[in-house]
Amino acid sequence: MKNIAVLGSTGSIGTQTLEVVKALGPEYKIVALAAGSRDDMLAAQVRRFKPELAALVGKEAAARLRENVKAEKCIVQSGLEGQLAAATWPTADLIVMSQVGFSGFEPLVAALKNGKTIALANKESLVIGGEILMREGLLDRNKILPVDSEHSAIWQCLGSSSSANVSKIYLTASGGPFYGRTKEELEKVSPGDALDHPNWEMGNKITIDSATMMNKGLEVIEAMWLFNLRLEQIKVIIHRQSIIHSMVEYIDGSILAQLGPPYMKLPIQYAITYPERKKNNFNKYNPFGGVLEFDRPDRLNFPCLELAYSAARTGGTMPAVLNGSNEAAVSAFLKGKIGFTSIPYIIETVMQKHTVVSDPGVEEVVGADRWSRLMAGEIIDELMKRVN
Amino acid sequence: MKNIAVLGSTGSIGTQTLEVVKALGPEYKIVALAAGSRDDMLAAQVRRFKPELAALVGKEAAARLRENVKAEKCIVQSGLEGQLAAATWPTADLIVMSQVGFSGFEPLVAALKNGKTIALANKESLVIGGEILMREGLLDRNKILPVDSEHSAIWQCLGSSSSANVSKIYLTASGGPFYGRTKEELEKVSPGDALDHPNWEMGNKITIDSATMMNKGLEVIEAMWLFNLRLEQIKVIIHRQSIIHSMVEYIDGSILAQLGPPYMKLPIQYAITYPERKKNNFNKYNPFGGVLEFDRPDRLNFPCLELAYSAARTGGTMPAVLNGSNEAAVSAFLKGKIGFTSIPYIIETVMQKHTVVSDPGVEEVVGADRWSRLMAGEIIDELMKRVN
Repeated sequence: MKNIAVLGSTGSIGTQTLEVVKALGPEYKIVALAAGSRDDMLAAQVRRFKPELAALVGKEAAARLRENVKAEKCIVQSGLEGQLAAATWPTADLIVMSQVGFSGFEPLVAALKNGKTIALANKESLVIGGEILMREGLLDRNKILPVDSEHSAIWQCLGSSSSANVSKIYLTASGGPFYGRTKEELEKVSPGDALDHPNWEMGNKITIDSATMMNKGLEVIEAMWLFNLRLEQIKVIIHRQSIIHSMVEYIDGSILAQLGPPYMKLPIQYAITYPERKKNNFNKYNPFGGVLEFDRPDRLNFPCLELAYSAARTGGTMPAVLNGSNEAAVSAFLKGKIGFTSIPYIIETVMQKHTVVSDPGVEEVVGADRWSRLMAGEIIDELMKRVN
Repeated sequence: MKNIAVLGSTGSIGTQTLEVVKALGPEYKIVALAAGSRDDMLAAQVRRFKPELAALVGKEAAARLRENVKAEKCIVQSGLEGQLAAATWPTADLIVMSQVGFSGFEPLVAALKNGKTIALANKESLVIGGEILMREGLLDRNKILPVDSEHSAIWQCLGSSSSANVSKIYLTASGGPFYGRTKEELEKVSPGDALDHPNWEMGNKITIDSATMMNKGLEVIEAMWLFNLRLEQIKVIIHRQSIIHSMVEYIDGSILAQLGPPYMKLPIQYAITYPERKKNNFNKYNPFGGVLEFDRPDRLNFPCLELAYSAARTGGTMPAVLNGSNEAAVSAFLKGKIGFTSIPYIIETVMQKHTVVSDPGVEEVVGADRWSRLMAGEIIDELMKRVN
């Protein structure tokens, strides 16, 4: 019997997690659910999964939820308090963290300090807060199980091997919908084009990040913290077919790779059932007739990748600035305010203006995040003025 | 400190094993060497590696060796006795078994009964004797470490996972030098053509087996016993590039693959240093720009593969007959006595004539091996008469 709390339960990973748990049968039970503001959707989940706790960030949404599920024996909480309660829920054996953005950080810290095991899909927590977690001795590979397909692949390839046995990691990247296009072509792409990913179905923010390759950049930083590797050990490799989800090269030259169809339910299930594996009805990869290709990333036309390496190299508050300015720029692009190639321009400009704080605490990191969004907003406004 | 005995030390795997041990440095020491009849070569190895024991099968060769290395503090033994002494040498922690053919079986049994850990390159022992080892409870995955590149790949992909978690194995095959040729074209190939393998440098016997795909058939049977799998779980897949050395599909659909250049020193070293990995100066696989392709095997033009599945399905003494008739046919082909396509014809004919003994002991298996060679010899003589 494994009791599970899901934070971010109304998002793409969250809903898939609930489907996986349902399909796994009665050995797996949902004991806590937490989301941002979608009270109707969370209410439906509460009725279906009968958790002991349901939490929404928004106070009004939580009040509506409380009213909506009063027939259920379910505690309803709100605010950060509710999220922290879900992250540390006493009966939960595993905390699935699939929130979007740095809002996942405080619940992650609380869960880790509480000794919980976490299935982590919220990469921003590690991108922004990895250095803090490391300093506090909270980065334990046995406690943070990755849900991202690439990191799940690395984790599976590592098995019980120590990071000291790793020579390098090949983090595979599909290249997104625009791979191979020139800068001139990229200037003209629309949000609709960018949301049409060739292999993966994901939320909007991550799909745009995939098109700019910032997603891969964030994953590089995530991998560095998750697996205790040096930045130079992590190589991004273009693999258009999205079948190999990443590879580990050991110090003796042996490479292990993990393969499967581009389908998030597999890494989600593995993080839930770990250390066991369970049968399922997911599509399987049939290698017969398959062709797998590898290529070097185009760093010139996809500068977000290099910006991420640069932020990781600088460290301190810089990864928070990378992430915050990226979130602001992506949001502006999705609203049609700026062009696709303005995304890296905005991030780079904000990073250049930033005065890095070394060994930051949570407050400095949150401050840098807010500052970077404000700065990005100013640059976006300027860009919009230039166009009009 | 790891003390190593090498049986078959003058062959292709044996000599590479010694080079690997030398390169690993003083933590690894050769304590026993055994070979068939090449006394000059073994004498040179004795002078270089200073083992406590050196053994040759041939009595006269052993006498010459004794004379040749009398300046060394090295016991020299002969006959099966010498091989068994090497396989159970008291100071040896690891026994590398790289003999050719079923002569490796009795030393393997002796070593296993002695509680030794074995690095096994001698696949015939498992093909012919797997059923006996299974019945005697001697097939322990922790005691028999594979050296064959495909089986080393599977072993690395399995890590500490139980076979019960495995859905299937994809055993990769280069297809050898003739893959894609028609039956008519295959009838005309010479031993020289067959010995020219596109990817691997190996001994003559295994290179011909690779060209007929019997090598892959023998590996299927080897994998079945090594990893305690059902025959139907083992799929042969053509992979012309010989970079992926095999893949494991788990019950949840996740596939792990092991990659590396086609180079035996890597699996040899891993079996020696296991559970550790050690740095080396071997060529590494560089995936950038790489293309990996998979295809179904051509079972029609390469019938040896199906013959091996059939022998494994029948069990009892049939795998011994498969192996024995194959050895006789390959030897005749290498001597120019028969054509390439006569190899599967001979094996199939001998298998059809065989009366299977179920639950055989060593005597029955050795008897079936001898009988199959005699029968193959008769068919070879007949074929030669027809041509002349």
